Amino acid sequence: MADLAKLKADLAGIAIEDNPAIVKQKSRDFFWYSPVLKRQLDHVVGDLVVTPKDEAEVIRVLAAAHAHGVAVTPRGAGTGNYGQAMPLAGGIVLNLAEMNKVTAIAPGRVVAEPGVIMAKLDAETRAHSGQELRLHPSTANTASVGGFVAGGSGGVGSIRWGGLRDLGNVIRLRIVTMEASPRTLELSRFDLHKVSHAYGTNGIITEVEMPLAPAYDWVDVLVGFDDWMDAVRYADALGNEDGILTKEIATVAAPAPFDYFLRHQKFLKREQSVVIVMVAPHSLDAFLAFTGREKGEIVFRADTAQDLKGLPPAFELAWNHTTLRALRVDPSITYLQVMYPFPDHQKKVARMTELLGDEVPGHLEFVRFDGKVIPMGLPMVRFSTEERLDEIIRIHEEEGCPIFNPHRYTLEEGGMKQTDDVQLAFKREADPDGLLNPGKMIAWEDPNFDYRAKKTFLFPGLQAAG
Amino acid sequence: MADLAKLKADLAGIAIEDNPAIVKQKSRDFFWYSPVLKRQLDHVVGDLVVTPKDEAEVIRVLAAAHAHGVAVTPRGAGTGNYGQAMPLAGGIVLNLAEMNKVTAIAPGRVVAEPGVIMAKLDAETRAHSGQELRLHPSTANTASVGGFVAGGSGGVGSIRWGGLRDLGNVIRLRIVTMEASPRTLELSRFDLHKVSHAYGTNGIITEVEMPLAPAYDWVDVLVGFDDWMDAVRYADALGNEDGILTKEIATVAAPAPFDYFLRHQKFLKREQSVVIVMVAPHSLDAFLAFTGREKGEIVFRADTAQDLKGLPPAFELAWNHTTLRALRVDPSITYLQVMYPFPDHQKKVARMTELLGDEVPGHLEFVRFDGKVIPMGLPMVRFSTEERLDEIIRIHEEEGCPIFNPHRYTLEEGGMKQTDDVQLAFKREADPDGLLNPGKMIAWEDPNFDYRAKKTFLFPGLQAAG
Ligand SMILES: Cc1cc2nc3c(=O)[nH]c(=O)nc-3n(C[C@H](O)[C@H](O)[C@H](O)COP(=O)(O)OP(=O)(O)OC[C@H]3O[C@@H](n4cnc5c(N)ncnc54)[C@H](O)[C@@H]3O)c2cc1C
Ligand SMILES: Cc1cc2nc3c(=O)[nH]c(=O)nc-3n(C[C@H](O)[C@H](O)[C@H](O)COP(=O)(O)OP(=O)(O)OC[C@H]3O[C@@H](n4cnc5c(N)ncnc54)[C@H](O)[C@@H]3O)c2cc1C
Repeated sequence: MADLAKLKADLAGIAIEDNPAIVKQKSRDFFWYSPVLKRQLDHVVGDLVVTPKDEAEVIRVLAAAHAHGVAVTPRGAGTGNYGQAMPLAGGIVLNLAEMNKVTAIAPGRVVAEPGVIMAKLDAETRAHSGQELRLHPSTANTASVGGFVAGGSGGVGSIRWGGLRDLGNVIRLRIVTMEASPRTLELSRFDLHKVSHAYGTNGIITEVEMPLAPAYDWVDVLVGFDDWMDAVRYADALGNEDGILTKEIATVAAPAPFDYFLRHQKFLKREQSVVIVMVAPHSLDAFLAFTGREKGEIVFRADTAQDLKGLPPAFELAWNHTTLRALRVDPSITYLQVMYPFPDHQKKVARMTELLGDEVPGHLEFVRFDGKVIPMGLPMVRFSTEERLDEIIRIHEEEGCPIFNPHRYTLEEGGMKQTDDVQLAFKREADPDGLLNPGKMIAWEDPNFDYRAKKTFLFPGLQAAG
Repeated sequence: MADLAKLKADLAGIAIEDNPAIVKQKSRDFFWYSPVLKRQLDHVVGDLVVTPKDEAEVIRVLAAAHAHGVAVTPRGAGTGNYGQAMPLAGGIVLNLAEMNKVTAIAPGRVVAEPGVIMAKLDAETRAHSGQELRLHPSTANTASVGGFVAGGSGGVGSIRWGGLRDLGNVIRLRIVTMEASPRTLELSRFDLHKVSHAYGTNGIITEVEMPLAPAYDWVDVLVGFDDWMDAVRYADALGNEDGILTKEIATVAAPAPFDYFLRHQKFLKREQSVVIVMVAPHSLDAFLAFTGREKGEIVFRADTAQDLKGLPPAFELAWNHTTLRALRVDPSITYLQVMYPFPDHQKKVARMTELLGDEVPGHLEFVRFDGKVIPMGLPMVRFSTEERLDEIIRIHEEEGCPIFNPHRYTLEEGGMKQTDDVQLAFKREADPDGLLNPGKMIAWEDPNFDYRAKKTFLFPGLQAAG
């Protein structure tokens, strides 16, 4: 065990918290969406929370932690779903919430500290020049931009701009390395991939430069369809309407909208599947014409609704908020992340609906992926056993629908199931002692891990962390 | 022959021009790009040019012309390529150039009179709120927005927003009908189709409401490739990069860029095909990374070029400006308009290149079409005879590449080769005497015309108009 007292002394002047209740709270994220992760990670807790107020303090923290061999796990707002921000080996939780300034706004771009909440960033860029982030997760009201880049993938706006992985959706990152003398590095172009979606395993992001899009007064609309596949076809066609500017298109299969969207329930019919749309005001007319022709029933329009009090924005019915609302009503629900590849995506959705029915209620987020509109599935799953969950995953994969498994806390198992050489190489450079967010990169922890063996990786440190 | 003297008396107070030289000039457009139309239309001339300054004057002109049975052919700036604005039956050329005010600008939309030049409109919306038209033809510096809606199809911006035909790319049109008592009508949603791209045959547009997009300081870039199909693949892939914001992507096959883009010649290599790109400044970094990876050679960048004096903007190398520049060097050149349908578009381009070689030098404009990126071809054609031109068209069609024939002055022959029932029905309503732009809508002039007979429609009035 490292000498925490000495470490604390080294950090004099920087905000430190070791109240166990608070440390426990800041050691957790939304991992409990997954019954698997809940079993594995529920006991995980760090030793202390350190809250730097600027990059200089980040450098001091990393230098001190490096000197004492203490693990450091960065944390934005802790809204990740895979335990990304949980300190599997204990040590320092590096809370970036106080580094929350927007530092520059220009046409098409914003520079900010990593801890700023995305809704706050958007409010500033909107007030400044009618701009907003291209993409945000449905947690925009609570999550940090740095956490989004390091741990998220896409969300609201992906129907227009694709995902965070796409070239151009992050412009520049500034990071601090975990070494005796931490360095600051500026990453752009293909180098961004080194730390984007790397869970903070190979550098602490201290500044982001993100592209902006125009901020419109997006209109929330819910469109009802008696038939699920009609809703899917409509959503797909809407996403392919080049002249209709939307920021969000999602479909949720009946009866989930009625059963789980409690605040909107009065607008919904239980037997109707729902398409969730955010449309630009100047595209509303065209959208209504299109929807009429496609025989969608407009069941809710925020611009004409009598009373919006208590109603969340439409995007908080979408992405993982769909799961959240379902979970609140029925705690046995969890979810999956499915890709339905172009051009057979509609057939594949129909096939999975046919095979799995109400055990896996449909939820699709339409996004641009390599230039084409496809649905990314975030289906709800009525959880029974981990074995059955694995079986459901296998059924998807056998039908040609790759799964990004949200029941795994490692980068590889949640993603491409193979070593990311770029991220691994950069970890060797930027965190040679393996102290940043230990246990999340299998390639580092166990280079010989066999992904085909279908065994889950278990980080040895997980035991020690308890 | 109508009594023009009486007609003129009825128009007292409205600007009228009957100087033959000016009337002749205002009776012509860019029809001469086509050797076929040049032969057919060269003698066409109206009787007088009337220039209303507001909608009230338009109403007076139409009422008087209707009373006297005189044809009226609207004219924006007369930059159309198919003789759209040419008065085949003589009569009045209704010059809308003086109705050129921008009347309202709001987030995402602009309201304007039809005669405003698009570059001027863009300058106003840019100064007002950093906005600009989603789409403009490469003639933005000379053409009117009303003429674009009534006679154009798409252009710069279509890689992002599709074409004018797409729902949402025109919001609202106000028109005046050709009746004893002309009515004003507001058209929106699917009704827009009644007069969009109808060549002014069924109503005079007196106001347009168009959607706006953010105006960035687009960077002009030319990318060189030693191989034509490498250029095509690169351009296609760039169009499918969801995070890289471009406004224009076109490819022109070697040696045309070097031979015809004289002002840019010093940057070009004769053996290289060129990709013409307009990219947003905040996407430039990602664009350069992408281009480097794809082994494109950046031969010109407007943001770093030493001296831009005398260089036209990149979009004036694209669309029909490519043809224009070729024509200026080699007057024997004309062009075609080809669609290469998704998903076999690349194969089809390669096939046509193989079949037609240097007789039909490649020029592709990448656009979004029904949600997918495809190349629309505007290939140059080394003209020999009309028979050979028809043969080249047939070869395209046999290979599954539909042609929109720019050597025809009628809506149908230049377009879908069938009656547009909506536009025809609306002409019955709005122009019952058939006085608006006579000779352009076959469905009206000759309902029994047989498109399969492959004979060109000849408007009887064409003789009389001489
Ligand atoms: C209801 C709900 C809905 C959601 N919807 C979406 C969605 O639509 N799209 C989506 O992508 N995600 C979604 N998520 C997941 C998550 O909310 C987002 O990815 C969010 O952006 C994470 O931000 P955060 O500040 O909470 O990050 P955290 O959870 O705090 O951190 C995420 C990861 O980034 C690392 N990290 C944080 N800050 C830094 C830094 N400065 N430097 C280096 N590493 C750092 C952490 O160690 C962790 O590995 C959702 C989650 C919930 C609970
Ligand atoms: C070099 C060159 C490049 C070009 N590039 C493009 C391109 O990229 N994309 C494209 O779509 N086109 C292109 N064109 C064609 C043309 O320039 C555009 O379509 C342009 O927008 C037409 O506008 P205009 O004001 O010149 O219209 P005009 O030529 O004056 O008129 C076009 C048609 O609309 C009718 N009309 C005009 N005003 C009204 C009105 N107020 N009410 C009703 N009817 C009206 C006319 O009768 C005519 O039928 C190009 C032409 C040239 C010569």
